[in-house]
This record gives sequence, structure tokens and C-alpha cells, in this order.
Amino acid sequence: MPRTRKPLVDPLDAFCKDTEAYLSGRRGGPLSGLDFAAKDIFDVAGHVTGGGNPDWKATHPPAGRNAWVVQTLVQAGATMVGKTHTDELTRGILGENAHYGTPVNPKALERVPGGSSSGSAAAVAGGLVDFALGSDTGGSVRIPASFCGLYGLRPTHGRIPLDGILMQAPSYDTIGWFARDASTYARVAEVVFENEIPDSSPSRIVIAQDAFEEADEDVSEVLLPLAEKMAALAGGSTTVRLAPNGLAEWASQQNVLQSKEAWDSVKDWVDQVNPRFSFWVSERYNFAIGLTDAQLHEAAIVRDQLRARMDEVFAGGGFVCLPTAPCPAPLRGQPTSAKKEVQSRLSRLTCIAGATGRPQLSLPLAEVNGLPVGISIMGAHGSDEELIGFARRVEAALAG
Amino acid sequence: MPRTRKPLVDPLDAFCKDTEAYLSGRRGGPLSGLDFAAKDIFDVAGHVTGGGNPDWKATHPPAGRNAWVVQTLVQAGATMVGKTHTDELTRGILGENAHYGTPVNPKALERVPGGSSSGSAAAVAGGLVDFALGSDTGGSVRIPASFCGLYGLRPTHGRIPLDGILMQAPSYDTIGWFARDASTYARVAEVVFENEIPDSSPSRIVIAQDAFEEADEDVSEVLLPLAEKMAALAGGSTTVRLAPNGLAEWASQQNVLQSKEAWDSVKDWVDQVNPRFSFWVSERYNFAIGLTDAQLHEAAIVRDQLRARMDEVFAGGGFVCLPTAPCPAPLRGQPTSAKKEVQSRLSRLTCIAGATGRPQLSLPLAEVNGLPVGISIMGAHGSDEELIGFARRVEAALAG
Repeated sequence: MPRTRKPLVDPLDAFCKDTEAYLSGRRGGPLSGLDFAAKDIFDVAGHVTGGGNPDWKATHPPAGRNAWVVQTLVQAGATMVGKTHTDELTRGILGENAHYGTPVNPKALERVPGGSSSGSAAAVAGGLVDFALGSDTGGSVRIPASFCGLYGLRPTHGRIPLDGILMQAPSYDTIGWFARDASTYARVAEVVFENEIPDSSPSRIVIAQDAFEEADEDVSEVLLPLAEKMAALAGGSTTVRLAPNGLAEWASQQNVLQSKEAWDSVKDWVDQVNPRFSFWVSERYNFAIGLTDAQLHEAAIVRDQLRARMDEVFAGGGFVCLPTAPCPAPLRGQPTSAKKEVQSRLSRLTCIAGATGRPQLSLPLAEVNGLPVGISIMGAHGSDEELIGFARRVEAALAG
Repeated sequence: MPRTRKPLVDPLDAFCKDTEAYLSGRRGGPLSGLDFAAKDIFDVAGHVTGGGNPDWKATHPPAGRNAWVVQTLVQAGATMVGKTHTDELTRGILGENAHYGTPVNPKALERVPGGSSSGSAAAVAGGLVDFALGSDTGGSVRIPASFCGLYGLRPTHGRIPLDGILMQAPSYDTIGWFARDASTYARVAEVVFENEIPDSSPSRIVIAQDAFEEADEDVSEVLLPLAEKMAALAGGSTTVRLAPNGLAEWASQQNVLQSKEAWDSVKDWVDQVNPRFSFWVSERYNFAIGLTDAQLHEAAIVRDQLRARMDEVFAGGGFVCLPTAPCPAPLRGQPTSAKKEVQSRLSRLTCIAGATGRPQLSLPLAEVNGLPVGISIMGAHGSDEELIGFARRVEAALAG
């Protein structure tokens, strides 16, 4: 027997108005009592997955079944109360959707929530739900987590089944979620990973010096002491530089390879439908169309170098610590040229987990001028549970 | 005192539903009794000029005054009854607008009306108005005239003042109009050109052999005999090949140079607004963004060669005769890849008047399988009146 459905209150424009989807959680499950939202790239049986683009929505049939992760959460007792806004086909990092508007960032009202999992981050940060599903291909969980002051994991690539989600770039796509506290985060993680979250600590914290140098000065000033506090809870710290030729080179390979995969995912549909995109989104697809084999080859070489270098860094164990984003959330409604600058800066920090498939968790432990800034820990492949368990310890230590 | 306004009946989806604009014609003018429509790129005081793109419309203020040509026609007695659909910012040749739909081609219900002056052509072909204003930058009057079975002039570049119209590419932009018969065409022309339309004939008809070879076989088969009939009314005929290296080379220069100007016209607005375009339109802007100085230089050289060659062709006097389009209107709703093929074929015939600034008039004198196909005559700079006057003679001769 389903629970009584409450009317959805959404002062943040976080939820899709044109997609009703409600799934009552199973009684007596480990997540009973929690409600959640899902970015509108997750299938819910009987509803069209809109993907943040009205032409996508108009040209696709309702989903036949629930996405694996949605079904798993509902079976575990969580109630899904609605679908949330996303950047168009997840192609965006700021959360400004030209068709559906920009969800409110409840922690910074004049600023963007971050994207592409914009509505999910807004809904959790504003207390409308306990947690919310997003996806992270190039930073789409980590960045809104940082901008909205939330916990947000990009899991190990391949760790959570992607069945029933609108894919962007398969080599990079992952499913993540947002929560306001580490305990809730861990509770969801135990269901999704079908595994206990341990109370362990890493052998050391590896402070990524060049990543901190990418950040605004006032951002590093608040984050570096946090890194030292984490190191004190772990087995100590060491400082390294990650990218021999600079993080910009590392970011450029992801821009090339992810863009190519993203275009390949949609090009047949684009030819058939001639859909409407905001200009910036279409510009990114056109960038992919124009890529030469030589550019793709060069990018693949850089990705190999990045992966080899990160294998070296992780050979000594521990978690790598870096700012999630170099800056707090930017203002809403800026010109595209300004937004491109921001995106470019963000990608220098998000590309590392993207290219290596390693898990990265953003922790909402700091503010600059009243605006949230996240600090990230990145672990070995499959260390998702350890990252979350350590975050819970750090949160408790800072509270105590 | 304004005349009584009749409710607008629009079974063809030719008119903009979100732009009311009505201007009562002055009593007793030479165009009294005629009503007309204007493509939604012409300013009408107090109304926003929408340009076929809702984000353009939402970010521009109402026009302060009527476009020169609109004001001139109303002063001459014609009543403007509404604004008509256009391809987005006039960037299209088929008339399929991703935001507002596709006006019905009353002469070919399953086929596109042609664009970008799509609604104006549909409204005239369907008898909703006596004539309608369009614009022709790369064929946007000539092609819908051909597809909808109408008279349609691309005038000499610079002949009709462009004050108060949404510009695309200033070196190519012209204002034209549609009518169902040559007499009405001439009546409007006398007002717009402030000049009498003579009953003259050209000294000869120059049959552009390579242009006819671009057309479908059944199209040339019906158009070539018409060319000969025109020659019989003129001082005879001669046959030439226009493009030494092929019409495709000629078309490519216009694609480059027009695209560049079109992007320059909108790029600051695009940066500020991040507007939504159909993918094909954005692809054309992105093509312009990617153009190198070398490509622009090469295109300018080809344009110079084209102009010199056409000066040679016209040195002997007369009108050049060519098919307006190589084919009848294509089916509605085709994939973009198929539409690009059509556009590419069309541009090989439209680019000649575009690059040289010469006037070209399409005459609706033929059909293939029941579908209209236009035949064009192109004259010397400033010969607009002679083209229309000769068309009136040809029409009369064919009727008699």
C-alpha cells in the first residue's frame, strides 16, 4: 500500500514541472523515512526522461522501467518525490538551462547552483529532500556539491550500474548523489554499494599543490588548513605536484575526448530532429564535429600520461586532497564568454577523476565570504566506501 | 480614420500568432484596395520584431517606427494585416522553423514552402493577402517564390532602403516581395521604386547552360522551352556557360562570406543571451566562427572572379535566364543531412545574384508533377523595373 503523497513544494525551481514521477519507498527498508529526488536523466517507468531539453522530451517515449539505482533506492525504502532540472543533456556545469531556467542556489541566492545536476543539488541544499541523485561525467555532481555546500561523490567509474539513465559520454559517465551530512550520505551509500561504510582513515593525505594553486587565493586559504586537519586524522601528509605540464593540458584532453563521445551519443537524433539547444551547448557539439583524428590521438596520449602520473601518485597510498572547484559559485546570468572562462577553470580540477575513473568526494566544510566551497578527497579505484567513511570521521571531528 | 479591421484567418500557419501588427492603408493611394503581410523582420512601430526566434523577441524592445518599405506601402494605400513567419534570423532556405513550425505550402501540401520568407510566400500563395514582403540574402525570396508558384524579386542590392529591418549580412541583404500575378507585382514595384514599370523587352535572353544542368532533368525539360518563348519575345537568345570551375565553387564563396557577416551581426547578442537555435542554425554560425583568414581571403578572390565573369556575360546586354531552383519544394520534415544536400544545390543557383548584387526575378510559369518550379531572369544593376515589365509581357503572351 503506497504512502500518502504530499504535494510537492518547490520554491527553488529545482523540480521539473512537466514530469510527474513519484515512487513510494518500500516499508521497513534501511532507507525508510528518507525521501529523494532524481535528476531528469533517470528513467522512471511510465514517464518520459526529459534530459533538460524539450525536443528530447518530445521525441522519446515513456521509460519502460525504473533506472537500476532508482529501483534499488525505492526497494530500500526511500521515497522518490520528483525529477529535477539538469543542464541540457547534461552538457553544462553551471546549471543555467536556457529552456527551463536556473534552480535557486539556497546557499547563494544570486549565484548559480552548478550543474549539470542543478535541481538535485538545489533541492537537497534547500532541505526539500534528504538526498538526490545526479550524474557526474565532467564534474556534474562535484561542482554543484561545492557550490551548494553539500556532500557529493563521483564514484569509481563503472561502480554503479548506469542502466536506465540518459548517457552522455560512456567512458566518463557516473551516477552520484547529494546529501547535507555525511551520515545520510553513508546510509545511501551502503544501499547503493551493497556494502558497509567503514570507519577507516587513509594512510596519508596527499596535498595536490598545483590543484590548490589553481584556486582563488581566499579559497586555498580556507581549504589548506582543512587538508591539514584531515592529515592529522589520517597517517600524515605529503605534498606533490600532479601535472608536469600543467593542469590545463590535462583538462584539454577531457574536453576533446568527452566532447567526441557526447556528440557520438546524440548525432543521429540531432540529424533526425534538428533540436533546439542553447548556443553554448550547440557550440560544444560543433567543437566535437570539427575535431580531427590528430586532435583525438593527441588527447588520448595526454590521457594516458595523466593516468600513468596518477598511478604514480597513488602508488604510495592514501587520498589525494584538492579543491573541488577553484572558486565559489559564479553569479547567475553572465555572458557566455565569462562562463566559458569559469568552465575552463573548473575543468582543470574535475578532469583528474574523470580521466582516471577514480572516486572523488566533495566535502562541504568551508565558506568564503559566506559562499560554500568544497574540499575533495580522491581515492584508489573502488575506495568509494573508504572516502565516505573518512568524510564521516572528519565531519564528526570538526563538529567535536 | 482607419478602416475596419477584419479578423485574420490563417489556415496556413503563415502568420505570427504572438505579434499583432496592423496598419491601415491611406485612402486613395495607388495601392488602395490591396492588403499585404510582412515577414517578421520588418519593424512596425510599437511591436517587437521577432525574427523567428523567441529569444531574440524576448530580448529586444518594440520598434520605434515602421520600416521604410512598410511605411511607404501604407502611405501608398496598402493595408498591412500581419507579420509572417521566417526562418530563425533569416538563416534558412526551407521555411521549417524549429520554434514556430512550418507554414503550409498551399501549392504542395506535403512540402516545405521555402524560406526564409516562408510565411509571406504561403500567405500570398494561399490567397490570404495580395502581396507580402520578404527579404533575400541568399535566396530567401526567390526560393519560396519558386516553391510556392509566385512572382518574387531579389532587387538590385542597395535599391530598396533597408531601414528598419533585422539585418543578416549587409553585403547581401535585400528586400523583396511576392505576388500571384505580374500586374500586382508591377503595381507594388512602381511604389517601392518610385518609378514606372515599362513594357520593354530585353535585347536577348542569355541561357545559362550550366545553371540548367544543375536542375533535375524534368525541371530543365519544362523550363528550357519557357526560356525559348521568352527569347522569342526578346531579341533572340544565346547560350553560355557561366562558371568556369563550376557553380559549386561559386556557391562556396557565398557560404563563407555571408556566414561570416551573419555571425558578426549577432555574435555580441549571442554572447549576452546564449539564445536557443535549432541545431542546424547554430551549426551555420559555428561554421563562421571556425573560418580562417585564409578561407575568407580565398572566398573573396572567388567572389571577385564571379563578379568579373558575370560582367563579361552581361557585356552583351539582355537578361540571363536560369532555373530559380534545381528542384520543386522538398518534402517537409526531412533529416538535416538531407536538407543540407538540398540547400547546397539551391545555393549554386542563388549565389550568382547574391555575389553580384544584380536583380533576379522568379516567374511562376511551370510545374513538374503538379509542383511549382520557377524560372528566373537576371538583369543589369538597376534593371529591376525592366525585369518586372518583361515578366508582365511574358505572362500576357503565355495567357494569350
